[in-house]
Amino acid sequence: MSEYGTLQERVRCRSLLDRVMKPEETIQFFKDGMSLGWSGFTPAGYPKAVPIALADHVEKNNLQGKMRFSIFSGASVGAETEDRWATLDMIDRRWPYQTGKNIAAGINEGRIRMGDKHLSLFAQDLGYGFYTKDTQSGKLDLAIIEVSAITEDGGLVPTSSGGVIPEILMACDRIIVEVNLGQPSFEGMHDNIVCNTPPHRQVLHITRADSRIGTSYVPCDPAKIIAVVESRYRDNGRAFSEQDTTSEAIANHIIDFFTHEVKAGRLPKNLLPLQSGVGSIANAVIGGLAKGPFTNLSVYTEVLQDTMLDLIDSGKLDCASSCSLSLSKDEGFPRFFANMDKYSGKILLRPLAVSNAPEPIRRLGVIAMNTPVEIDIYAHANSTLVGGTRMINGIGGSGDFLRNGFLKIMHTPSSRPSKTDPNGITCVVPHCSHIDHTEHDLDCVVTEQGLADVRGMAPKERAKRIIEKCAHPDYKPILSEYLEIATKDCIARKVGHEPQLWDKAFKMQLNLAQNGTMKIKNWDVKIDLCE
Amino acid sequence: MSEYGTLQERVRCRSLLDRVMKPEETIQFFKDGMSLGWSGFTPAGYPKAVPIALADHVEKNNLQGKMRFSIFSGASVGAETEDRWATLDMIDRRWPYQTGKNIAAGINEGRIRMGDKHLSLFAQDLGYGFYTKDTQSGKLDLAIIEVSAITEDGGLVPTSSGGVIPEILMACDRIIVEVNLGQPSFEGMHDNIVCNTPPHRQVLHITRADSRIGTSYVPCDPAKIIAVVESRYRDNGRAFSEQDTTSEAIANHIIDFFTHEVKAGRLPKNLLPLQSGVGSIANAVIGGLAKGPFTNLSVYTEVLQDTMLDLIDSGKLDCASSCSLSLSKDEGFPRFFANMDKYSGKILLRPLAVSNAPEPIRRLGVIAMNTPVEIDIYAHANSTLVGGTRMINGIGGSGDFLRNGFLKIMHTPSSRPSKTDPNGITCVVPHCSHIDHTEHDLDCVVTEQGLADVRGMAPKERAKRIIEKCAHPDYKPILSEYLEIATKDCIARKVGHEPQLWDKAFKMQLNLAQNGTMKIKNWDVKIDLCE
Repeated sequence: MSEYGTLQERVRCRSLLDRVMKPEETIQFFKDGMSLGWSGFTPAGYPKAVPIALADHVEKNNLQGKMRFSIFSGASVGAETEDRWATLDMIDRRWPYQTGKNIAAGINEGRIRMGDKHLSLFAQDLGYGFYTKDTQSGKLDLAIIEVSAITEDGGLVPTSSGGVIPEILMACDRIIVEVNLGQPSFEGMHDNIVCNTPPHRQVLHITRADSRIGTSYVPCDPAKIIAVVESRYRDNGRAFSEQDTTSEAIANHIIDFFTHEVKAGRLPKNLLPLQSGVGSIANAVIGGLAKGPFTNLSVYTEVLQDTMLDLIDSGKLDCASSCSLSLSKDEGFPRFFANMDKYSGKILLRPLAVSNAPEPIRRLGVIAMNTPVEIDIYAHANSTLVGGTRMINGIGGSGDFLRNGFLKIMHTPSSRPSKTDPNGITCVVPHCSHIDHTEHDLDCVVTEQGLADVRGMAPKERAKRIIEKCAHPDYKPILSEYLEIATKDCIARKVGHEPQLWDKAFKMQLNLAQNGTMKIKNWDVKIDLCE
Repeated sequence: MSEYGTLQERVRCRSLLDRVMKPEETIQFFKDGMSLGWSGFTPAGYPKAVPIALADHVEKNNLQGKMRFSIFSGASVGAETEDRWATLDMIDRRWPYQTGKNIAAGINEGRIRMGDKHLSLFAQDLGYGFYTKDTQSGKLDLAIIEVSAITEDGGLVPTSSGGVIPEILMACDRIIVEVNLGQPSFEGMHDNIVCNTPPHRQVLHITRADSRIGTSYVPCDPAKIIAVVESRYRDNGRAFSEQDTTSEAIANHIIDFFTHEVKAGRLPKNLLPLQSGVGSIANAVIGGLAKGPFTNLSVYTEVLQDTMLDLIDSGKLDCASSCSLSLSKDEGFPRFFANMDKYSGKILLRPLAVSNAPEPIRRLGVIAMNTPVEIDIYAHANSTLVGGTRMINGIGGSGDFLRNGFLKIMHTPSSRPSKTDPNGITCVVPHCSHIDHTEHDLDCVVTEQGLADVRGMAPKERAKRIIEKCAHPDYKPILSEYLEIATKDCIARKVGHEPQLWDKAFKMQLNLAQNGTMKIKNWDVKIDLCE
């Protein structure tokens, strides 16, 4: 018996009550090598009781490396599940995003195969069977879905995220359902639609951030449900990112820019639906809007963080559409649950295939704002791989929003402290060591130094503007010199549309590795090709 | 009097007959520094009489460099216009795509500012005023639109392409209309819609390639039309690309793959709507389908080439939606006009904002196929800049289709002959020198050597598969060795999700510049950072 009701109340499809079992009783269903579908999106709405029970089982019986799985979920799930699985060598493949020190180590040390993908594509491709085409059954072997309730007909009511539940159900015939009684039910907050496979894919009739086009549950054949498990674990949540002066300066540049665009008639007074990524800059932007001059705002995004509650409290937000509610465990979620009536009326949760679909993002004219690892002078951005090789989390939905937004904004500090150079390595480089977003996808680059609006600019103009407005003062002369010598050389060779010199372009990165700093003294490089 | 009717017949808005003038009489409207909007898309449907008259004027009066313009059109226009303007130093800025030896020279020598952009974004951003925000009027100064007819209310009936006519009309108040009497009217072949600005952008209710959602003309306030000019020039058209054994081998791999996917139940028997880029491979693919096993095909693309007429003649095509009809001048267009009743019933022309919109491309599940300059082992593609710096044409719509397609396919010969190495330089490299399409966007890479289906593969798996299936035999061992040493080194440093070594990654390109070949003997590089 929980203060939030009983299994009997939440599982309204009575026949499923026969399939109730304890988490440890589901261990029988898991076999080494299986492909698993998990609910969840950015530590919210993921299964906990069963993954934790299975981890306990592996640990207790020294089965490390003997039960390895492929995990497909909407995005990251809580560290107490995937990251612990990684420490127990339980993960062979992981798609399309992850968070956790140990899983990242496994990926970058070559023990875990990971792939990232634009999340909207991941969702649909999972449903189309692209990820399971080489498995024996051609399907996902098993799914674990956390729900708030099961409807009379077996429909699954998700918890704090939409994720890829519809696509998992398309690709999987054996489902373990975790009914979460550790928190209030999210029934009514979701708008689900199961996207058909082309050529029968539906029109998504979303014309406002809060348009409802589906049902509060995801339809599911009850015959597919092989186990119903009670869970009382709450989401691990997303740690609250403190704002700092850098983030606040960036937020102020962005709000000034919005003000300018409204004045110029290119943005409505209440702006357009906002998408803001995760982290301290995103927090500062949303926090800044809560104190800012704009009202009747709306949000169309994939993740809601704690400051979204402030924006609702400010009275300036009409509605927020998201794939997940990713609040902090100790502050955000308790605050949300204590005022669920107030907050839930403003928030709509959608499956990933809809929250990140190009169709509504472009139609609504979303203002897309995301943080990269580094950006280059021509406005390419690296969102995933430090040094071009080390995976952090994955591309997530940044490409869905940046490619399709009305305004496409990347924000980053101009420099970051590094172990070897506490004064900072530059986040603005000649050429990104990995490119996730191209020069064709970005409108504005913002750092605490300023905002470069590069719309309609040719590459060399963009480079000048980005260096001038965004680079850290320590790096401005270095970057300007690169642009100058690269331009001179490439123009002389009549190949100078977008100047680069391949013996020098990565000198800052190589120097960081060799000498511990990106502050190079000159652009000279002597290279011997050893032919 | 033309065999295709008179101005009086084509200009049904009678009041506009007062504004008929000769091409040379429109020269008065052009002032140095103006921003111009042109109809047209991939040498089809662009204005000719007025641009040629203005070029004659500049040439005759030695005004080279004294009348320079910014040109915004759907994509490239005929060489007799933009390329001649480039030779006369009449172009300051050019967006978002171009073709021609002289305009490319101007861009790569730094005399012409060019920018390329995903075409669907270019269209909407032009309408939103992003390209004219820094001009004095905040608008395009002047537009030149080729039409087949003007309706009673001033509506413009385009000719052989949709292009960005709706967005030009949103951004421009002074329009010169060229009525093309040198060819039959295209009235009835177009389906136009003017996309509103967010938050009022409409749903695009396209559920089949041939869905009609708009009107046969683009609405235009007749008061905006300052001149009506008669033209008899036909489109310069797209030279027919001969098929060769390489292209045919690629086409065969693709058709085999489709057959496999149909058998596996992941593609319907009549496939899904096809998008095929331009050039000899695209021609071979469409030609192959005309002889192949699939029927009731449909096409949803941006450009139709000559072989599309073969596909229609084969009886295997139900319908083709495109932004332009870009046939060859001497064969394709005469063949089309001689059988216009037959062909026009199968072809629908749309504005760029619709032909390339993510919304219908994703909903219909388009199979996207395009040719890059080079591809890398991790499946990033360079579509625009040779050597990472020299602009060829522009990204065009490749990103619109590859990002949103059901299957995203890149096809290229495995190697190309170069001036210094007639045996060929590899088109599969360790790291692309410019990235237009990321690893998150591609499903399959195809060369004459084979097809690599990399769906669901982690980076190192993709690299192995692409080298194995797609690289030229001369380069396979070289690329495999790179992957091996990069993997070993990065894994040892625990940064090996997607291995690259920045002192070596561009060795093949540097060696081509220094020693004339990409066939390097080893991966050793001695680098002195000169600190």
